[in-house]
Amino acid sequence: MHFDHAGIATTDANDLASLYVDLLDAERVHREEFDGMLVVFLETGDGYLELLEPLDEEGAIARYLQDREGGIHHVAYATDDVEGALANARDLGVDLIDEDPRPGAWGHDVAFCHPKSTGGILVEFVEH
Amino acid sequence: MHFDHAGIATTDANDLASLYVDLLDAERVHREEFDGMLVVFLETGDGYLELLEPLDEEGAIARYLQDREGGIHHVAYATDDVEGALANARDLGVDLIDEDPRPGAWGHDVAFCHPKSTGGILVEFVEH
Repeated sequence: MHFDHAGIATTDANDLASLYVDLLDAERVHREEFDGMLVVFLETGDGYLELLEPLDEEGAIARYLQDREGGIHHVAYATDDVEGALANARDLGVDLIDEDPRPGAWGHDVAFCHPKSTGGILVEFVEH
Repeated sequence: MHFDHAGIATTDANDLASLYVDLLDAERVHREEFDGMLVVFLETGDGYLELLEPLDEEGAIARYLQDREGGIHHVAYATDDVEGALANARDLGVDLIDEDPRPGAWGHDVAFCHPKSTGGILVEFVEH
């Protein structure tokens, strides 16, 4: 299990990507429309930033941005066994948003733990 | 420049550390009282989680926790030249909280960019 990315909610992924490329010496490595969002991945040393811009009024990121201009929405940890990570989380008493891995951006399998049982932090498991 | 840590605000750093050690297969690597906070560092693959528990009612983390139970307070990127990173940020038009590096937890030099010019994300530069 290792750090994969911080998920950033933003109203303008392209604009914020331009800043972070220069600020963190990062590189644009992926861009797609996924699940009603523009998703841009920047590669930083030892991981990624995932910039998430809602393209409609629905969805978790659009709701998140109703209260703020942007922010760190989640942190993701990579594993080669998301099902095993979920089983372990379940054993620890962690409530799960996803009982099973589901397709995420960039063709990855993802699953989220519920922040109410992880100290208010939305934790994602991701399998590349 | 590479990912160093996500800074997590929490009302109980020891308790949350116990969970994340098991959830993310992380390891407790440092613990200290610093600047009115209990600070616990967990090593995850490719970086750290920094758990920040206020020990008094003052300070940025205590204020952050007035509105929520916990959350991802900042992301930190390691560099061997914080002053250079700050100069670059300044050139990019980024407002700085710290014009110069200052002593942070674990004996590191740190400096923060103001989230108003980085998309609402509190970005830290850290030099080990």
